[in-house]
Amino acid sequence: MTSSPRLLDRIDRPQDLHGLTDEELQQVAQEVREHIIDTVGEIGGHFGANLGVCEVTVALHSLLDSPRDKILWDVGHQAYPHKILTGRRDQLPTIRQYEGLAPFCAIHESEHDIMGAGHASTSIGYAVGLKEGMRLAGDLDAGKVVAVIGDGAMTGGVAFEAIHQAGGLGTPIVVVLNDNGMSIAPNVGALSRYFNRVRLNPKLWHAREGVEEGLVTLPGGIGAAFDRLGPRLKESIKSFWAPGLFWEELDWAYMGVIDGHDVRALRVALKAALAADRPVVVHTATVKGKGFVAAEEGGLEGMERWHAAKPKSIANRVPAPSAPAVPGAVAAPPQYTQVFGEALIDEVRRDRRVVGITAAMNSGTGLNLLQKAEPEHYFDVGIAEQQAVLFASGLALEGAKPVCAIYSTFLQRAYDQIVHDVCIQGLDVTFAMDRAGLVGDDGPTHHGAFDIAYLRCLPNITLAAPRDEAQLKHLLRTALTQGGPFGLRYPRGEGVGVALPGPGEVHAIAIGTGEVLREGGRVALLGYGSGVGRALEAADLLMEHGVEATVADARFVKPLDRELLGTLAADHELLVTVEEGTLAGGFGSAVLEALSDAAGPAPRVLRVGLPDRFVTHGKPALLHAEVGFTGRDIARRVQAALFAGTGEVLSEA
Amino acid sequence: MTSSPRLLDRIDRPQDLHGLTDEELQQVAQEVREHIIDTVGEIGGHFGANLGVCEVTVALHSLLDSPRDKILWDVGHQAYPHKILTGRRDQLPTIRQYEGLAPFCAIHESEHDIMGAGHASTSIGYAVGLKEGMRLAGDLDAGKVVAVIGDGAMTGGVAFEAIHQAGGLGTPIVVVLNDNGMSIAPNVGALSRYFNRVRLNPKLWHAREGVEEGLVTLPGGIGAAFDRLGPRLKESIKSFWAPGLFWEELDWAYMGVIDGHDVRALRVALKAALAADRPVVVHTATVKGKGFVAAEEGGLEGMERWHAAKPKSIANRVPAPSAPAVPGAVAAPPQYTQVFGEALIDEVRRDRRVVGITAAMNSGTGLNLLQKAEPEHYFDVGIAEQQAVLFASGLALEGAKPVCAIYSTFLQRAYDQIVHDVCIQGLDVTFAMDRAGLVGDDGPTHHGAFDIAYLRCLPNITLAAPRDEAQLKHLLRTALTQGGPFGLRYPRGEGVGVALPGPGEVHAIAIGTGEVLREGGRVALLGYGSGVGRALEAADLLMEHGVEATVADARFVKPLDRELLGTLAADHELLVTVEEGTLAGGFGSAVLEALSDAAGPAPRVLRVGLPDRFVTHGKPALLHAEVGFTGRDIARRVQAALFAGTGEVLSEA
Repeated sequence: MTSSPRLLDRIDRPQDLHGLTDEELQQVAQEVREHIIDTVGEIGGHFGANLGVCEVTVALHSLLDSPRDKILWDVGHQAYPHKILTGRRDQLPTIRQYEGLAPFCAIHESEHDIMGAGHASTSIGYAVGLKEGMRLAGDLDAGKVVAVIGDGAMTGGVAFEAIHQAGGLGTPIVVVLNDNGMSIAPNVGALSRYFNRVRLNPKLWHAREGVEEGLVTLPGGIGAAFDRLGPRLKESIKSFWAPGLFWEELDWAYMGVIDGHDVRALRVALKAALAADRPVVVHTATVKGKGFVAAEEGGLEGMERWHAAKPKSIANRVPAPSAPAVPGAVAAPPQYTQVFGEALIDEVRRDRRVVGITAAMNSGTGLNLLQKAEPEHYFDVGIAEQQAVLFASGLALEGAKPVCAIYSTFLQRAYDQIVHDVCIQGLDVTFAMDRAGLVGDDGPTHHGAFDIAYLRCLPNITLAAPRDEAQLKHLLRTALTQGGPFGLRYPRGEGVGVALPGPGEVHAIAIGTGEVLREGGRVALLGYGSGVGRALEAADLLMEHGVEATVADARFVKPLDRELLGTLAADHELLVTVEEGTLAGGFGSAVLEALSDAAGPAPRVLRVGLPDRFVTHGKPALLHAEVGFTGRDIARRVQAALFAGTGEVLSEA
Repeated sequence: MTSSPRLLDRIDRPQDLHGLTDEELQQVAQEVREHIIDTVGEIGGHFGANLGVCEVTVALHSLLDSPRDKILWDVGHQAYPHKILTGRRDQLPTIRQYEGLAPFCAIHESEHDIMGAGHASTSIGYAVGLKEGMRLAGDLDAGKVVAVIGDGAMTGGVAFEAIHQAGGLGTPIVVVLNDNGMSIAPNVGALSRYFNRVRLNPKLWHAREGVEEGLVTLPGGIGAAFDRLGPRLKESIKSFWAPGLFWEELDWAYMGVIDGHDVRALRVALKAALAADRPVVVHTATVKGKGFVAAEEGGLEGMERWHAAKPKSIANRVPAPSAPAVPGAVAAPPQYTQVFGEALIDEVRRDRRVVGITAAMNSGTGLNLLQKAEPEHYFDVGIAEQQAVLFASGLALEGAKPVCAIYSTFLQRAYDQIVHDVCIQGLDVTFAMDRAGLVGDDGPTHHGAFDIAYLRCLPNITLAAPRDEAQLKHLLRTALTQGGPFGLRYPRGEGVGVALPGPGEVHAIAIGTGEVLREGGRVALLGYGSGVGRALEAADLLMEHGVEATVADARFVKPLDRELLGTLAADHELLVTVEEGTLAGGFGSAVLEALSDAAGPAPRVLRVGLPDRFVTHGKPALLHAEVGFTGRDIARRVQAALFAGTGEVLSEA
């Protein structure tokens, strides 16, 4: 690259691309790529997917008039080039930082972010709605609508539902299928094999305007167009269209495969697609991590490793540095994810009926460990949380003991299967909900705030949460020995640093029993999961101010330990519940229900948890401070409650 | 038909079919059909779908060894023939009755009911799990696994997720695609058009054993088999296989189209499919309502009307008799469904941005009225609740005001879209949740027990419920004027009989305000939705015993009317909450939270609602009595609470 001024510096809005030549656009795309490598290299963030779509993004914005024309980025972790080209170039260094740019598209951040996202497979559904909304308002030409979706996200059933609806209505939208053979991990399943067959076809479709444009825009579609062509041409074109039969059957026009790093080819194809009066898919082949040697050379594994980059990692070309190797330094406690992954291997070795299931979050859930250690007991269903749970239901009926390892927020996608297939049938399925609570940088679409509330209303399920990584092992054992629906939530990040039990020391915990950790006086702090740590911190602070607090770990929110609760209620004037979940319908709410049902004298209850609003992105410590989920906040509120009107308050120190 | 003894009377278990000839099996299928017509004609129940699968069921059980071999019935409303052939022939007259046979398959009812269902599109997912469970246990041949799924249910995204997984794993299962062009209503969308093209092909595939059997079982699949055939044969077979390309792309073998009423053809095809070592779909064409002239002659509309039959309707060939026409008799109040459907038409005519969306429940939701009156403001997305909500999100972004009319229980399928797409984005989407509460005959998979709990934990949403059909109109207006996510729940069945406001009299209700309906003394009854009616009944009974109760309608559970709550709390010694939803995390729970947060003196609270278990099927009055959700139950509990230990109790009279 030359040191001449960047073209990119003149792109302050997407319309600034409109006058540029194909060659200049190709250069802008490369400059966008370098801008991302430089920025994400410094501050961390999503990486590989963004490098893959630089040309696609430039080509789209060069043809469209955003935001009148609408580009929808599925998931949104590949929207950095879009953010750069839509006035946010210089803010990119703030991305995923507290009060900085959002990690995904966010409708309140920019008029160019048409839909908010974070979860996969939603963009086509929105696109149909947007376009039909224009039709309803009487102006079908109010703007073009393009959804960009990865091949991984195509697995999600709702994408299929949307394709089916658009085909049925003939809604004129364009889907750019960004096919790189990956979601976060390499894709699995039949759809992925189908895409591979097509993508790996050497005849990538470049720019051959006349014929293909005609094909797409002809009212009768591909078939009719075929009939008007001579037999030889027909045969030679067929090989390009054949991969599209899947789409054609659903009344979509198909164009592909386009080299997704060739701006000119992309522009020709997209122009034809945008001119069509029916749904069109433009199938592009891209390389995840394109232009970053460490990712490209690492093959599929390299691409997975570079899905997101940690700060400073890129300059060193070493992804995701783990515990520091400073001599004499204390190693950080292991991540809950890793403890879970290792514990699950132990469980599989102890009981061959146990299997682990992930929905395309192989390493995020720790199941990569199981995959290596016990590949036959490991299943990846792709981005398909509903199927993960149905598959588990079938396995359970056949006597297996499936563990669905799905983040708290993604499990929402399988809610009906949890109710209808696991709980009504009373099947022996365990849900291991990683990322329960505030997850940090990924923000509101990824926080695990609702699982306590949306699960504890269901009959037949047992719900528990460990206060530390040792308890996680005991509670996983508990789940696998109790024989019915079981939900186990645990937070993102490191454990608290307790010693881990060896395989022979792991034991099941009696269902519905809590544990008193510390005996105190007027106030009892009852924590659930990561809330217990906060309660202990609060108790320490209170102690400094002469208040001795009882601290207990509820361990189960369903069933609650009513005996423990009765004791705490009888012996304290203030009961504080602490949970890293929404207060509406959560753990504290369950405590109120139990106290009300007991109809005995009840103490005042103070519920600490997440507020009734969506929490932004940023480092967990900042977010916890923002929502008042710290030991200090709890201690202050306890003091305020105990000494209301007495003037005593916790010192700021 | 002759009056000779039925073959069916000798079929006490499915194995009794094994020795019969094709002709005898065909006769058994017809006898099953007549048994259903006779029985359902007398007692009511699902009808059309069952008449369509008599031959499919007989053919399957004649080849399989149930329950070792496993037949999974998607939804299960077409499982009557299966129940008849698996030892429940003589119990059929009890179906859907309280303590009688379940309306769908139920795993606790029979070892032949492999999975429980009621919601659509789950069977293939289970099938993959069952078969992979056998593989895991080391015996892939432990039993054949067959899923029978309708073309309508194929729209549901999770079916696609399952097809994708099975294709990827090569799981040897058989899917019988029972293609009748209907779900409950005629199907919509591209998939449906695709099936139509295939089904309406005149060349129905009958019995031609050799070649096709070879094709399916050849390891290389269809393509490899083609290569071994002569060119002419190849061409003639290709026309049969072409419709299967959709499946072939996903690594399934496809067989079709089979005449689904020809037992011999079915048996030949199924035998080949069952012998394959890979996933196979057997595409059968059937007629919904087959053999019942009134349904068949009515075309698609007739088939929809005869999806379920009311008692006695069949003998008269008049479906679903509505209000009795006895001279002088008071007409029954209109159904909530109908009031909603009419109200939505009024809203569309008042504000052209309003649209109604259904997920294949056109008449069940009352949207058939809108479809007729304002077809451009009506959308049916097929059995695809997730897409219904995404589509609504896109429409809302484009300025429309979508109303998703989805039963409480089916809305579970779209939970993630509600959280991630509607609530986080704060979009103007209204959820009209019919069938909230106990629905009666359809039982646990259909009761709307959880929506209050699973929705009220979400930020940004407003939740309300009408106490009567007039309030439904006011609250729908409220939803459409407030401009954000809004959930409106109302029960199945008739309104309470109040006068309905005309279009000019409908008005929005101030968000988060309740209403005092009756002033009383020591006890306050605070109802939500249908709970208000129960509270009023209880108040009447209490009055007879000298207790004057205040009765209030909360109207909103989110936000709660905290001012009203404060007043009720201050002025009464007992506060009773009444809701037709689960108590765990429900309306009463929200009241406890508000009282706790207010930290003032609170009265004792008694929460009345649905229990923490799945409730069975039966007439609503029986179910309400079973769970204690009647005015009398409430009055008794109030008396017990007020006069605990005084010996006073409500008389039984």
